[in-house]
Amino acid sequence: MELKTPYAFGKTVDMPYVETERKVREELAREGFGIITEIDFRKKFAEKLQKEFRNYIILGACIPSLAYEALDTEINLGALLPCNVVVYSTDDGKTAVMVMDPVEALAIIGNPKVLEQASSVAEKMKRVLAAIP
Amino acid sequence: MELKTPYAFGKTVDMPYVETERKVREELAREGFGIITEIDFRKKFAEKLQKEFRNYIILGACIPSLAYEALDTEINLGALLPCNVVVYSTDDGKTAVMVMDPVEALAIIGNPKVLEQASSVAEKMKRVLAAIP
Repeated sequence: MELKTPYAFGKTVDMPYVETERKVREELAREGFGIITEIDFRKKFAEKLQKEFRNYIILGACIPSLAYEALDTEINLGALLPCNVVVYSTDDGKTAVMVMDPVEALAIIGNPKVLEQASSVAEKMKRVLAAIP
Repeated sequence: MELKTPYAFGKTVDMPYVETERKVREELAREGFGIITEIDFRKKFAEKLQKEFRNYIILGACIPSLAYEALDTEINLGALLPCNVVVYSTDDGKTAVMVMDPVEALAIIGNPKVLEQASSVAEKMKRVLAAIP
């Protein structure tokens, strides 16, 4: 099922969490994204707060050549990088994959060159989502 | 000197980059932020693109208890976490510290509870900046 918020787009799938996460990593690599940050909130909350939380991982995706160009255009852009891809278990036993919408997130910058780069990232991310059954 | 963009706030300081980075880490810790991601673009671009770049690091700051509450309010919020703090060398030999403005970045969500949490993070970040001479 398609999911859409004002700041992210994605879908829920019937695959288990672990399998979905693996597939997301594979498809990101296929589109040229490196994963340069990872936050596993289930682990983090267990460690720091002794609280149980659903499976929830944030993968920070980045294409170094695009990041280089983007920072050249807008030096403070690092405040909004990388492009996050979130995989989590839903309440009804499915798995959700949500991608930060780079066009919405970077629209605030008001630089047409950055928006063009953001659109190119969004296109790639849409192909990643499309490749997840 | 104060710096302000539509999506980030910060300042330039006369301290060298390495010293500024150390001070930023110290002050983040003092406000209760953990650093849960780090991206060193100078290193990354050298490795991946064989290109020289200025000193530029992105520190992903997160207060686990606030993140837990925020995700409880808005499950897809992970797409916009953590709050980035960027330290970089400026063209004129100074160092800039820029913080993603959590209020601006999270305004797009349109959830008053999330905005309240974002304001609390912004307040802490302003104290971090104020503590950097």
